Amino acid sequence: MISARFLPLLAGAVLATASPAAAVSASAVTAATPAPAAKPAGIQRIDPTFWWVGMKNPKLQLLVHGPGIANSTATLRAYEGVTLDGVQKLESPNYLLLNLTISATAKPGKLQLEFKGDKKTTYAYELRQRTTPGDQQKVQGLTQQDFIYFLMPDRFSNGDPKNDYIKGMRAPQVARDSMYSRHGGDLKGIENHFDYFKSLGATALWMTPVTENDMPKASYHGYALTDYYNTDRRYGTLEEYKQFVDKAHQNGLKVVHDVVLNHMGSKNYLFLDQPAKDWFNQWPTFTRSNYNSSALNDPYGSELDRKLYNKGWFDTTMPDVNQSNPLVATYLIQNFLWWVEYTGLDAYRIDTYPYSDPKFLMQWGQALQEEFPRLFLFGEAWVGSTAQQAFFARNIFQPVDGFKSNLESVFDFQSQGAIHDALRGDQPNMNRLYEALQGDWMYEDASRNVTFLDNHDMSRFYSVIGEDFAKYKLGVAWLLTTRGIPQLYYGTEVLMKNFSNPDGKVREDFPGGFAGDKQNYFTAAGRTGQAGEAFNYLSKLALYRKATPVLATGKLMQFIPQDGVYTYFRYNEQGQAVMIMLNGNKEEKTVDGVRFAERFTGFSSGTEVVTGATLSDLKSFKIPGRTAWVVELKK
Amino acid sequence: MISARFLPLLAGAVLATASPAAAVSASAVTAATPAPAAKPAGIQRIDPTFWWVGMKNPKLQLLVHGPGIANSTATLRAYEGVTLDGVQKLESPNYLLLNLTISATAKPGKLQLEFKGDKKTTYAYELRQRTTPGDQQKVQGLTQQDFIYFLMPDRFSNGDPKNDYIKGMRAPQVARDSMYSRHGGDLKGIENHFDYFKSLGATALWMTPVTENDMPKASYHGYALTDYYNTDRRYGTLEEYKQFVDKAHQNGLKVVHDVVLNHMGSKNYLFLDQPAKDWFNQWPTFTRSNYNSSALNDPYGSELDRKLYNKGWFDTTMPDVNQSNPLVATYLIQNFLWWVEYTGLDAYRIDTYPYSDPKFLMQWGQALQEEFPRLFLFGEAWVGSTAQQAFFARNIFQPVDGFKSNLESVFDFQSQGAIHDALRGDQPNMNRLYEALQGDWMYEDASRNVTFLDNHDMSRFYSVIGEDFAKYKLGVAWLLTTRGIPQLYYGTEVLMKNFSNPDGKVREDFPGGFAGDKQNYFTAAGRTGQAGEAFNYLSKLALYRKATPVLATGKLMQFIPQDGVYTYFRYNEQGQAVMIMLNGNKEEKTVDGVRFAERFTGFSSGTEVVTGATLSDLKSFKIPGRTAWVVELKK
Repeated sequence: MISARFLPLLAGAVLATASPAAAVSASAVTAATPAPAAKPAGIQRIDPTFWWVGMKNPKLQLLVHGPGIANSTATLRAYEGVTLDGVQKLESPNYLLLNLTISATAKPGKLQLEFKGDKKTTYAYELRQRTTPGDQQKVQGLTQQDFIYFLMPDRFSNGDPKNDYIKGMRAPQVARDSMYSRHGGDLKGIENHFDYFKSLGATALWMTPVTENDMPKASYHGYALTDYYNTDRRYGTLEEYKQFVDKAHQNGLKVVHDVVLNHMGSKNYLFLDQPAKDWFNQWPTFTRSNYNSSALNDPYGSELDRKLYNKGWFDTTMPDVNQSNPLVATYLIQNFLWWVEYTGLDAYRIDTYPYSDPKFLMQWGQALQEEFPRLFLFGEAWVGSTAQQAFFARNIFQPVDGFKSNLESVFDFQSQGAIHDALRGDQPNMNRLYEALQGDWMYEDASRNVTFLDNHDMSRFYSVIGEDFAKYKLGVAWLLTTRGIPQLYYGTEVLMKNFSNPDGKVREDFPGGFAGDKQNYFTAAGRTGQAGEAFNYLSKLALYRKATPVLATGKLMQFIPQDGVYTYFRYNEQGQAVMIMLNGNKEEKTVDGVRFAERFTGFSSGTEVVTGATLSDLKSFKIPGRTAWVVELKK
Repeated sequence: MISARFLPLLAGAVLATASPAAAVSASAVTAATPAPAAKPAGIQRIDPTFWWVGMKNPKLQLLVHGPGIANSTATLRAYEGVTLDGVQKLESPNYLLLNLTISATAKPGKLQLEFKGDKKTTYAYELRQRTTPGDQQKVQGLTQQDFIYFLMPDRFSNGDPKNDYIKGMRAPQVARDSMYSRHGGDLKGIENHFDYFKSLGATALWMTPVTENDMPKASYHGYALTDYYNTDRRYGTLEEYKQFVDKAHQNGLKVVHDVVLNHMGSKNYLFLDQPAKDWFNQWPTFTRSNYNSSALNDPYGSELDRKLYNKGWFDTTMPDVNQSNPLVATYLIQNFLWWVEYTGLDAYRIDTYPYSDPKFLMQWGQALQEEFPRLFLFGEAWVGSTAQQAFFARNIFQPVDGFKSNLESVFDFQSQGAIHDALRGDQPNMNRLYEALQGDWMYEDASRNVTFLDNHDMSRFYSVIGEDFAKYKLGVAWLLTTRGIPQLYYGTEVLMKNFSNPDGKVREDFPGGFAGDKQNYFTAAGRTGQAGEAFNYLSKLALYRKATPVLATGKLMQFIPQDGVYTYFRYNEQGQAVMIMLNGNKEEKTVDGVRFAERFTGFSSGTEVVTGATLSDLKSFKIPGRTAWVVELKK
């Protein structure tokens, strides 16, 4: 999420002068200085809200929140296999950290935590039985065989009008005529259209964050988290989200959970009542990030630019979380373990990945991968070069300043830029597509990267290419045949358009998703005109891809484009091969097939997948202007 | 040299059908098959033409050339410390390879080589005493403290009209009105202007190849080598070149020797009478390189594209040398050792570096560095990204397909592209300059890279920037203050201009270098108008740089440009620092100095080096439009 920074700014977020770091040493069991005189009272919450027995890491750190709780003495009533190793105070009297060890022999049940101050409070903390390693439906991960459908829950479909207004939440209005307001979409609306995704050939759903975003303005996008342990109830309850993931799995759809590590919403309870000043990156006055990841690994970079990048705020309403504080790091790691174990989600899409503290990113990724080897992690690193993008993924670089990314996948902004550049003008520039993949030598495995034509932060592909349907088909064919895990932004399959300024223009409601919609793009009958043609073209290719593993997982071989024609192959050792030829020119081109001899061995003809046309001669081709061929080669 | 491929093509260079590899195994001392019946005759030449005792590598492989020589039996008359280990035949009867070992105890002298066939021939082969490790004047290498002046000997100055015409050489005409003909410049002409280079602040000279280029057309550029062991006598004899290097050293000027590994001229004796077909990369019909280094390390690249890149010919007149043939590799390695030991040259500039066989490049670089640790090697890798450029230099990448470059320096085409882009338009794009260096994290040490504004293969800088003198000064100031070893193309100091199509337009004669020139830019009086102003500005900065080590070798810190102003510092641990501020805007800009606080510690004011102006306040600056400040900071 880059351009959310252009949202209307909220007043009142200017911070007080930063104080020196005030974290209590993580090893101190009791704080040395007495907390201010606030009386212990009830427990407001404990994070994580519950936990499991059977995790690989036996450690658990509970953040207890309650007015004056630091003035109480915490103890754990005897529980077989669980020990309370220490209690730790923070700067605020309203927090207490409990460090527990849960041995491998511990059984599920309820820990009795007692807090004794002026009065005694007991809290029954639940330990559940871990299910993930056993239940193969949970945490399936993503591979190149997937095809991700990406949508904004608020803008896709309103399946449950009852959750449009939740009492006590901020910004209660649903106003479909305002691009900054919520429109009422929800999980039920998405669930109602599982068949639609399947008919399109999608195998995975990525939604902008479904976690609570109880902000006064523009809460619809979800990137200003206000509760790490709850869904936004206007989409559905926590329990409903868990059921949503289960149902998606039953329907052959994986679920990608969108997360933000770098910042939170300013209405998060952790910001409203801060555990410690150094829970956040504080500045004397509001200081914005420079949004330039170059500062991070510029060998000549200044301390200032680096600090601005990592510790500057993404927006006035998005406090920057200080992940170099080990207590914060633990809080975040546990939270993201929690969502996986609880829901069985298949992948995390990590927003604004490079903005986080580099060492923390390594630690976070490692902890998740150790606990959930099948979990797929992919990050948003919106940067200007393949090298810089690969820097934030697993790569062939020596560590730089101690940082070596362990992220298995990133969004491929380089090939996305390339497909825009290649097709945007009157003259094709197919070489951009070739060169965008050439740099893959820098990745450990670039086939895990997520490819896309557009997303919620940029102009829609169909508008970028001047609403040229021939170019659209070139783009779609490229997306579904090149290496990587393809991602489609909702509506691109039915030619939704607009330029992204402001963002709301590219976040319009999906036609047919809301009561009273005049058009219904969910049905074939409703997809009038070219929208239907687009859907049919895209779904035909996506379903072919789904049924043809070589296209999804085969090796790639690409030839340097000549004369505006870009030709590449997906092939495997089993003698299957698909040739993709993209003619970017307006005019028909004759292509010398002899050039591709090394990939034609064993083949004598081919069938174009979309039209069914036979290519009986592989020695020479006449490909019409602005045409994509996806050709299954035949013996 | 990229665009020499656009030279007029010569007819008749189409090759015969390639034959299978025909090299005799390197271990075979006598060939198994009898050579065709050609009678042994005199020795035409032996390469290397002579050698030394005292080299680290005791091995020496002599390539003997003479009609039917393969039919003779070669022996070495007893010589203390030298043995003839074997004799090796090639496909052609006109060549014989002698493998010698020269022990550490061998003394200089003449080896008596005897060739016995129908008649006996004796050849006295000279072994000289090695001088390089001892003589500190020889092989000085290059560092950031240098400033390279790059010129084309044919186009710079004619100091010796007697060598304009050499009997027996092709294309004898000197025609100054033709951009493809020779103009008569020579070593003597360069030597006559040593004082000029020194007055400019240059410390090193790089000339386009001075080796023999006896081609019928366009021989002036020197990149079609016809004799590996001779100079082009129209520049000066071999002995005169050796003296030239000595005199340059005596004048505080280092010498960069320009070499081509990838190809040779088609009039080279090794091509006219080929030792073996696999001495060259042969094709059924003339096949041009695809000139795209991407093919080399594209993980999805085709064999064809890779082969075309490495083995396709650079031009019809430039046969591609097959360096994967170990005999060819040895021939080349010995040749380039020979030039260093013989002349004491300081650095090799390697033309078309990535076009050569990757494994050979590693082998070649290693052999040179082992024998001459002080020798500086820098290569031309004209590619499209920092990553691709760093791929051909020492870098932080794991090996790719077994290739890991050991080249210590490359031309910095990325920052050259950046300075053109930054200054070419009406709106400044100073961020390009920042980003061009940001990628330096990929190099082992990018400060060894050679920076430049233009060269013989591209449009001249002054034309690219629209002959805007303010922009010119920005470019010059950048060149002489950024990291790297700056290189100046002859004439840029006096505003020579032109766009490079064809190349000849940017390879015009230096005014004053030739008898009868109306203008003489070598003298202050002759540099009328802005040419003088340009020279004075450039030389002032270059001489300041020469006298101020912190500017040449200090660390670099750069700040992300803001508002079209790019600010960076060179600084060292000894408390010296220079601030460079480049305002690309037409308008004056106010710059917040507090942003640079981390570099201002210990300083309270500064002096602008060119104007002498004092900056008494480091808290805020008003820098005029399109202005470069080079500010020495004061305590």
